Amino acid sequence: MTAQCSLSRELPVEEYIIEDEPYYVPVGNEVEIFTAAYKNLLPVNLKGPTGSGKTRFMEYMAYKLKRPLITVACHEDLTATDLVGRYLIKGESVEWSDGPLTKAVKNGAICYLDEVVEARKDTIVVIHPLTDDRRIIPIDKLGVILQAPPDFSLAISYNPGYQSAVKDLKQSTRQRFVAIDFDYPPPELERKIVAHESMVNGEMAKDLVKIGQRIRNFRHHGLEEGVSTRLLIYAGKLIHEGIEPREACRIAMARPITDNSDLQQSIDEIINAIME
Amino acid sequence: MTAQCSLSRELPVEEYIIEDEPYYVPVGNEVEIFTAAYKNLLPVNLKGPTGSGKTRFMEYMAYKLKRPLITVACHEDLTATDLVGRYLIKGESVEWSDGPLTKAVKNGAICYLDEVVEARKDTIVVIHPLTDDRRIIPIDKLGVILQAPPDFSLAISYNPGYQSAVKDLKQSTRQRFVAIDFDYPPPELERKIVAHESMVNGEMAKDLVKIGQRIRNFRHHGLEEGVSTRLLIYAGKLIHEGIEPREACRIAMARPITDNSDLQQSIDEIINAIME
Amino acid sequence: MTAQCSLSRELPVEEYIIEDEPYYVPVGNEVEIFTAAYKNLLPVNLKGPTGSGKTRFMEYMAYKLKRPLITVACHEDLTATDLVGRYLIKGESVEWSDGPLTKAVKNGAICYLDEVVEARKDTIVVIHPLTDDRRIIPIDKLGVILQAPPDFSLAISYNPGYQSAVKDLKQSTRQRFVAIDFDYPPPELERKIVAHESMVNGEMAKDLVKIGQRIRNFRHHGLEEGVSTRLLIYAGKLIHEGIEPREACRIAMARPITDNSDLQQSIDEIINAIME
Amino acid sequence: MTAQCSLSRELPVEEYIIEDEPYYVPVGNEVEIFTAAYKNLLPVNLKGPTGSGKTRFMEYMAYKLKRPLITVACHEDLTATDLVGRYLIKGESVEWSDGPLTKAVKNGAICYLDEVVEARKDTIVVIHPLTDDRRIIPIDKLGVILQAPPDFSLAISYNPGYQSAVKDLKQSTRQRFVAIDFDYPPPELERKIVAHESMVNGEMAKDLVKIGQRIRNFRHHGLEEGVSTRLLIYAGKLIHEGIEPREACRIAMARPITDNSDLQQSIDEIINAIME
Amino acid sequence: MTAQCSLSRELPVEEYIIEDEPYYVPVGNEVEIFTAAYKNLLPVNLKGPTGSGKTRFMEYMAYKLKRPLITVACHEDLTATDLVGRYLIKGESVEWSDGPLTKAVKNGAICYLDEVVEARKDTIVVIHPLTDDRRIIPIDKLGVILQAPPDFSLAISYNPGYQSAVKDLKQSTRQRFVAIDFDYPPPELERKIVAHESMVNGEMAKDLVKIGQRIRNFRHHGLEEGVSTRLLIYAGKLIHEGIEPREACRIAMARPITDNSDLQQSIDEIINAIME
Amino acid sequence: MTAQCSLSRELPVEEYIIEDEPYYVPVGNEVEIFTAAYKNLLPVNLKGPTGSGKTRFMEYMAYKLKRPLITVACHEDLTATDLVGRYLIKGESVEWSDGPLTKAVKNGAICYLDEVVEARKDTIVVIHPLTDDRRIIPIDKLGVILQAPPDFSLAISYNPGYQSAVKDLKQSTRQRFVAIDFDYPPPELERKIVAHESMVNGEMAKDLVKIGQRIRNFRHHGLEEGVSTRLLIYAGKLIHEGIEPREACRIAMARPITDNSDLQQSIDEIINAIME
Repeated sequence: MTAQCSLSRELPVEEYIIEDEPYYVPVGNEVEIFTAAYKNLLPVNLKGPTGSGKTRFMEYMAYKLKRPLITVACHEDLTATDLVGRYLIKGESVEWSDGPLTKAVKNGAICYLDEVVEARKDTIVVIHPLTDDRRIIPIDKLGVILQAPPDFSLAISYNPGYQSAVKDLKQSTRQRFVAIDFDYPPPELERKIVAHESMVNGEMAKDLVKIGQRIRNFRHHGLEEGVSTRLLIYAGKLIHEGIEPREACRIAMARPITDNSDLQQSIDEIINAIME
Repeated sequence: MTAQCSLSRELPVEEYIIEDEPYYVPVGNEVEIFTAAYKNLLPVNLKGPTGSGKTRFMEYMAYKLKRPLITVACHEDLTATDLVGRYLIKGESVEWSDGPLTKAVKNGAICYLDEVVEARKDTIVVIHPLTDDRRIIPIDKLGVILQAPPDFSLAISYNPGYQSAVKDLKQSTRQRFVAIDFDYPPPELERKIVAHESMVNGEMAKDLVKIGQRIRNFRHHGLEEGVSTRLLIYAGKLIHEGIEPREACRIAMARPITDNSDLQQSIDEIINAIME
Repeated sequence: MTAQCSLSRELPVEEYIIEDEPYYVPVGNEVEIFTAAYKNLLPVNLKGPTGSGKTRFMEYMAYKLKRPLITVACHEDLTATDLVGRYLIKGESVEWSDGPLTKAVKNGAICYLDEVVEARKDTIVVIHPLTDDRRIIPIDKLGVILQAPPDFSLAISYNPGYQSAVKDLKQSTRQRFVAIDFDYPPPELERKIVAHESMVNGEMAKDLVKIGQRIRNFRHHGLEEGVSTRLLIYAGKLIHEGIEPREACRIAMARPITDNSDLQQSIDEIINAIME
Repeated sequence: MTAQCSLSRELPVEEYIIEDEPYYVPVGNEVEIFTAAYKNLLPVNLKGPTGSGKTRFMEYMAYKLKRPLITVACHEDLTATDLVGRYLIKGESVEWSDGPLTKAVKNGAICYLDEVVEARKDTIVVIHPLTDDRRIIPIDKLGVILQAPPDFSLAISYNPGYQSAVKDLKQSTRQRFVAIDFDYPPPELERKIVAHESMVNGEMAKDLVKIGQRIRNFRHHGLEEGVSTRLLIYAGKLIHEGIEPREACRIAMARPITDNSDLQQSIDEIINAIME
Repeated sequence: MTAQCSLSRELPVEEYIIEDEPYYVPVGNEVEIFTAAYKNLLPVNLKGPTGSGKTRFMEYMAYKLKRPLITVACHEDLTATDLVGRYLIKGESVEWSDGPLTKAVKNGAICYLDEVVEARKDTIVVIHPLTDDRRIIPIDKLGVILQAPPDFSLAISYNPGYQSAVKDLKQSTRQRFVAIDFDYPPPELERKIVAHESMVNGEMAKDLVKIGQRIRNFRHHGLEEGVSTRLLIYAGKLIHEGIEPREACRIAMARPITDNSDLQQSIDEIINAIME
Repeated sequence: MTAQCSLSRELPVEEYIIEDEPYYVPVGNEVEIFTAAYKNLLPVNLKGPTGSGKTRFMEYMAYKLKRPLITVACHEDLTATDLVGRYLIKGESVEWSDGPLTKAVKNGAICYLDEVVEARKDTIVVIHPLTDDRRIIPIDKLGVILQAPPDFSLAISYNPGYQSAVKDLKQSTRQRFVAIDFDYPPPELERKIVAHESMVNGEMAKDLVKIGQRIRNFRHHGLEEGVSTRLLIYAGKLIHEGIEPREACRIAMARPITDNSDLQQSIDEIINAIME
């Protein structure tokens, strides 16, 4: 249960290479656009709701472009130091440990900052010099400036539905990225995905997708956000495991997305109507 | 009174195994649902008021599934580092110490984050990669990524009655869990539980449950939350010890749940009416 | 003036044993209730105003039950770590130092958290597993879980008159304690206490108590809180030392409890009327 | 310019003994009251405006009672640790360093917390066990409880004119102290003090005091606080040094106490009228 | 992956010299003004929107003046210590490491604080003594005062459109800098820049600039900030790579600058109208 | 680029001695007043707007009084520890490093706290014992009390125009200082200063001063603060360097002091009218 520091820091970047092709079905020409941006060293911003496939898309692109993918889940306490690296005390000396961003720059990996608006301002600022034509990362604590190789690229994502005045990307950051919109997959495609991942039959997948679409319409009636494809798959898995379909839908779709009892009841009615 | 560091970190995971079957009486099919979710690697969210049996249910499921249960009581100062692990200075070198989440992943345990909305945002984010199909936990400080074994599972709980805009689960977190509702047990069952645990006779248990139900109705009249089964048992224990029943009810049921003297008086009247 | 670390941490728990019977006169059956709760392993919550004898009662019960009493004065900066324990650097190695709560659990002492609502949320949460049927304290930093022995017990106190929305006990905490109300002692008893502790004669004690009662009535007229028995004793001591009685009352009773000059004047008039 | 740690911590408490009688002229019977409180082990609270002589009074009492006086100027960042003490790294080992409160307890000194409402809540709480009949100070970090000797005493001060809801002494703290009111000295006495300390003649001192009294009347007309005796002395000193009297008054009395130009002009008129 | 501390701190200042002339086309006489200010040791403040060429201008001036350029991207967590320098533990001793500002002073470089209003107040204050006739930087932690050589200069930038009451330069800071206004380049010049950098033909560059100008007009209709020249170049690069022009404009110009769907639609209409 | 700790702390106080007479032209009798205060050990408070010569005056007085001048630019993060001193780890031991205030006390220097209202409350409080008749500085961390020698003196400054309720000097601090008002120099004197420092001829200096006076009148029309003499000198220097006078005025006077385009236009009109 005790890990040696020296061992841990030798983790090869190959760990971040995605070896098996992820299951991803393109919705539009997002693959071509990302590829064009990548070739022109343009950073990319993925905008879209929870569970609309942004993370899976990044895994797919990393696989296609044969680059390691280093993902950072951003949060309020993520500091610039966390991204760039820090000194660690090691026995009698002090050794430098690369943060994920520095590791990506050194290895020509794709660095993906998920939910970037959650991060503190200093995290955002630290990526600025990497996203203009300089493509450098100054590491103040080391006193060095690294030049990113051409195969390094930077992608960020956020959910525009969440943003408030407090948590917003500054224009000086936004205008450094081309932006690709993401949304839930169209019904036919979503049906295929649900059936593939949960192993329910096509008819059941069709019903689950129909429920999902009806729930998403509630977004204009007080529901904070629609139900994600992931939750449709959860419902399918519970059904496939033998749970009664309407109960499975309540547990995997109605209860997770809201605590409001009126909304829950409306969703339950949808479920009962479709899963007659 | 001095514990050796080296000793302390050798604590075997078997410490977390629940050896005796906990006393738990299912209310609905929550046991089947949790089992189905567990088999399909779906994380579970238990929603319900204080004292409705969520923690006991987790102990019961851990016993049934024969997995260690590692419980974390979440609070405002719980950091991602607390969950994942940290380096500790040990004599002349520095050693890594697993946090409870990492320990659960390594040992295929069930990790239960109690009152998860109390935790800081970075705690929540750290569980994201464990709750999608990747089922990984990146440990930045070690520079390693752990893959969770199939017998690892993650459960969270919270009380939907408490939530404010400030303390709410983000949709990007909620939509990673199937959600099971919990509530106070139905009267017949609660009577059985109170009698079993406090050793009062059936008639007294019946009266205590009747008082509890009447108090819970006050939730729509200014009472923040109903009285839990636990407090009914407390009253029963004091009565069994020889304290006068009406006083026992005041001390174990009226005084703990509110400081409002009007509400206390109304509750006292209920107590006097039933415990004539 | 230099204390050795090793010496300091050897402080035996016997230091916390109360050897002489504290002067405490029961008002109601609080002694029987506390004893019944103690025997049934129920945690106790003492609710009442400043100076109503909660701390003295705890000392009395600890003496009666022959257990060490470890008192913690809660405040905003009290952390879970302060309660549970921490590592201290000691020469070339690092040693663990028990916090007061851990020390109480290990030694079967009574741990008393005074003014618990002042503490931070993480302090409150850390006592949860000690207050249900598990009766355990997980010490994350050591990686151990301690089981409390039957003679360990936990008591908390707070002043319900102070509580605001910000500083309130959560229901999930409140419902873990039976609650005993405390108030100022009845006149006859308070007279006895004041005479005993300040050594003034019975007539003077009677006048002091009469003033105290009149001042307490102002609580409905802008006075934040009534005058405590302790301040009546202060006044008595100054009088016994030779200070003119009306001046002693002003200095020990009127000036300490309010800065409002109108209220001070009203209190001075009461003093002058009774101490004619 | 380099101080050795070991040397510094050897500072004998005699440093805190006041050897020469401070110049203090009693206004009322505050000396008798403080002495009576001291003999009865009652903590004392000095309430009054800036520059009304509270600090000088404490020096005088310490001299009279022949005890060392350890003064702590409270501020927002003063922690309980600052008061009680901390461990300091010293070469290869760690040594304990007493804070001012602990030093006062150990040596039977008078500890004076000036402007106590400025301190953080944990500072206030740490003095509670020293101010009831226990008279102890628990030093958690050392794991020891010190019993204060009879010659130890505790005094606090604050300015009631400043207090807001945010910065106020809690009743549970206030009711542990007898309280002595302080105000500016009466004219005859203040004249004597100004002449003594600034070496101006009696006529000039009389005028300065007259100006001071007139300015203090403005407290009901927008002036935050009256002019202190100290500033009257400052004006006297500048005059004695040869600065033109009206200019000296403007610089030492009008400009320091307000930035409001209307008030400054009114004060200037007072000065010109009296210093014709 | 492990960098030696000693190596890292030897980074020669030559690293900061710009060897190739940056592509910069002057809009007015900003080059002459900056040169005059530089010769007279006057600090310079560049005011203007995102992407109006401030950073490129600084690179150009540094190249022209043959001085190293040390750029600091300011953010909320940037401390005075980050700018000035700090001690780092190195093996058994402690070594000083210059911050970027100190490094610039020592080497007669140009120090450029980008988006200076984002920095904390202590960062701003630390540059004050460098921006008056003293031209010194006191390094408290070293106990030294450095005198800046004549070839050192200091420049700051900010976007006046962003400033709120909270984030504003204090007058005591503002009045230490001459200020040069920046704005988007005039159409003919922007066309030349877009064609040069994205390699699209002149006709396409003309259309892109036309779209940019139309979008900038929306600044008075709810758009936070206009589209930068950089985004026009992004669109050009995607077009040059083969992406359909209208889609390229949507992805590089409409989606990055706003999340408002009404504004996005208006911008899409502009794009469709011009890229018919 | 590596400074040795031991070397750095040997910096002799002579570094702080001002060897050449600073260029300062007295406006009133501020030199006599400061001298009288210095001789009587009275602390001095300089009140006035940005750029009204406070800092230069302090340099002049330090030169005249032949004392070292230790200036501290106050800011929000300046702690008492920064002023007083701290322990630094040095190889195997820990050494004390004097802060600027302690250094000034030890060497009988003048300590000047510039913009003192910016500092945190604990910074202010730390100077209290130095500013009454005790003239001591207790250094808690060393456990010593230093007595200031007669040639030590303390001065503070602030801009009364800035002060809000949040950032204000408390009366208990204000009333420890005599206060000298500062304002822009009268026209004839300012003309002389501008000509002397920027090397423009008398006619041009006259025009610059005229513009400055007109701009200062805008302070009652929305301008936060008038233009400082420093900015007039900046304009003069740019003109002397060959920049067109009206442009020099815009860049050195209009643009630095406001971002409001209406105010900028009004100021431009003043410039154009006077620099016809």
